[in-house]
Amino acid sequence: MNYGKISLALHKKHKGKIALTGTVPVRNKQDLSVVYTPGVAAVSSYIHENPKAVFTHTIKANTVAIVTDGSAVLGLGNIGPEAALPVMEGKALLFKTFANVDAFPICLATQDVEEIIQTIKNIAPVFGGINLEDISAPRCFEIEERLKKELSIPVFHDDQHGTAIVLLAALTNALKVVKKTKSVSIVISGAGAAAQAVFHLLTVAGFTAGNIIMLDRKGIIGTHRNDLDSHKSAIAKITNKENRIGGYAEAVANADVFIGVSSGNVLTKEHVATMAKDPIIFAMANPTPEIAYEEAVKTKVAVFGTGRSDYPNQINNVLVFPGLFRGVLDAGVSQITDTMKVAAALAIANLVPKNKLSKKYIIPDAFDKRVAKAVALAVKKTTSKKSK
Amino acid sequence: MNYGKISLALHKKHKGKIALTGTVPVRNKQDLSVVYTPGVAAVSSYIHENPKAVFTHTIKANTVAIVTDGSAVLGLGNIGPEAALPVMEGKALLFKTFANVDAFPICLATQDVEEIIQTIKNIAPVFGGINLEDISAPRCFEIEERLKKELSIPVFHDDQHGTAIVLLAALTNALKVVKKTKSVSIVISGAGAAAQAVFHLLTVAGFTAGNIIMLDRKGIIGTHRNDLDSHKSAIAKITNKENRIGGYAEAVANADVFIGVSSGNVLTKEHVATMAKDPIIFAMANPTPEIAYEEAVKTKVAVFGTGRSDYPNQINNVLVFPGLFRGVLDAGVSQITDTMKVAAALAIANLVPKNKLSKKYIIPDAFDKRVAKAVALAVKKTTSKKSK
Repeated sequence: MNYGKISLALHKKHKGKIALTGTVPVRNKQDLSVVYTPGVAAVSSYIHENPKAVFTHTIKANTVAIVTDGSAVLGLGNIGPEAALPVMEGKALLFKTFANVDAFPICLATQDVEEIIQTIKNIAPVFGGINLEDISAPRCFEIEERLKKELSIPVFHDDQHGTAIVLLAALTNALKVVKKTKSVSIVISGAGAAAQAVFHLLTVAGFTAGNIIMLDRKGIIGTHRNDLDSHKSAIAKITNKENRIGGYAEAVANADVFIGVSSGNVLTKEHVATMAKDPIIFAMANPTPEIAYEEAVKTKVAVFGTGRSDYPNQINNVLVFPGLFRGVLDAGVSQITDTMKVAAALAIANLVPKNKLSKKYIIPDAFDKRVAKAVALAVKKTTSKKSK
Repeated sequence: MNYGKISLALHKKHKGKIALTGTVPVRNKQDLSVVYTPGVAAVSSYIHENPKAVFTHTIKANTVAIVTDGSAVLGLGNIGPEAALPVMEGKALLFKTFANVDAFPICLATQDVEEIIQTIKNIAPVFGGINLEDISAPRCFEIEERLKKELSIPVFHDDQHGTAIVLLAALTNALKVVKKTKSVSIVISGAGAAAQAVFHLLTVAGFTAGNIIMLDRKGIIGTHRNDLDSHKSAIAKITNKENRIGGYAEAVANADVFIGVSSGNVLTKEHVATMAKDPIIFAMANPTPEIAYEEAVKTKVAVFGTGRSDYPNQINNVLVFPGLFRGVLDAGVSQITDTMKVAAALAIANLVPKNKLSKKYIIPDAFDKRVAKAVALAVKKTTSKKSK
């Protein structure tokens, strides 16, 4: 099916995929006096005197900004803010469909870090959360870190943390299938924004940094490398405890798990043959995975997942972001913590019942209506345990 | 009726007055592949190659930003962006209700002119138009002027031009009622953003600048004053051809028309007694007009209008902005011109049939469904006469 052609026709017909709607009617002068002047003045005055009321009496209660600068859109790269808009509209549609979150696309006409930060801070009053999207590394790191410090609403770069959470969920269940523990050895193919977030969340969740090897385009990251930036240098010091040097062949030998957040066709059948018994492979590169499904099934792989909907075990961020923001909006928290991210991952994993768990079913379907609710609930539970 | 109390309860119940909705369904993996990846990539690529397609294939086609810095909200003053949000939501609701325009509130956490301009430019890719709202003078002048030059989408400060357009419509019909021409003498009470826009549009529409007298808080504006800023100095040079000096008493003597865009209770019955035969009075200060309806009816006033819904002849911006933006979005123009503003005013005036025109009915009702359509059509017609 030519999804591109169908999509183009649909976008032209509907002029975009989202619209605004009123939650209250305006039928006559009395309605007008309530929703607008003079009645609305009482609401404005109330918020002016009780600043927290903006979270209970306005759209801020349920509204998230999906902010991009169009610098790293899908596999298309730096296509700019206007061309990024259909993707952000799609994301907004998923927020609404899966978790009734009102998400509005903000596509920025700047790729300057300071200007992006300042612009988001300036528009923040209307929003209850900021979902950063498709912003290229390393700028996305600084933008997220700064905004987390300087804003009092949750800020979340989905390409990083959404990917990390859903991969942690998938890995948790895959390990049950192959009867292995968190002491597994893991190769992360890629060292960009998503890869670094995956690495971080795995260590938070109890996996051992020394058992993890990361690769960038130049090969295995380790203390032998003298071409690393500060982020990768920090990773080199705590990963790769065997001090392996080389490329994919050297990295994946005897590995239990391969996580691809890099580019297509970097992993061969021969590589997989050298992995440990019952290997787990998550090949997330889109649309071409690190190893094609058709190739992978010819190997000894035990559990195989991709980001694609046309193969088993689709590991898709849509399982995460709607419920996560539903949870933080409902809980009224100002940060998305690592504890929440792990709780969200486990909530997703736990939706697959033990008696149904299998090589082909490690993660719920994207349209499983229980997912967003379970994620939201898990996030809220982390906040009720302690004062925020 | 206590509209404030009702409004506060309604806002708390609904958590704001607008929400997002999808224009297309997401029911299954096939839908997902069309509205999001992989299908959406074709739309992004298409816009990247054909930049104008953002106006036909995305929400930009029908979406306007309502931008405020919360500095001059209703009669409440500088209450800040969060407290301004309920007003902007109300405006968004009116845009949707009256003209099916998707308007999204942007409340800025800055009141710095340069930062406001830069922020609006940065978020402009998603929007087909910018409606500036409740930004205090003189900053609103520079912000609007700069954005008109630096953006290629329509920019419109409604407090100024919406007010000017609807007053021109009311005055056009009021003059028919009293059988006077554009040679009337006019007093404009107020010299702020709205007042200056009213003055400008009256001159564009054929009224004589020399026959107009403006007053600020210090009295009549004229060349005798040495305390005027550049905007008022320019006005002093072309208005007040009789070189009157003084306050309201001196200004309104023999005047045919009084237009109040100032503050409550500045015009007395005694003042009105000195006006010309069959005077027209538009007392727009909200919620307390320049002269109360109950006082005005005791005078010789021929036509009286206010901004309030509880008296005859409500002169309300809601007659203008929905249809005006409907027209410019549909016409795909990059500027809102003076020609469009005059056309909009005349379209509104012409909806009152000659045989129904009277002292109590000079302007259509806010809920007259013909208004937005007529305004949109009039605006579009101005663009078809000549290339833009």
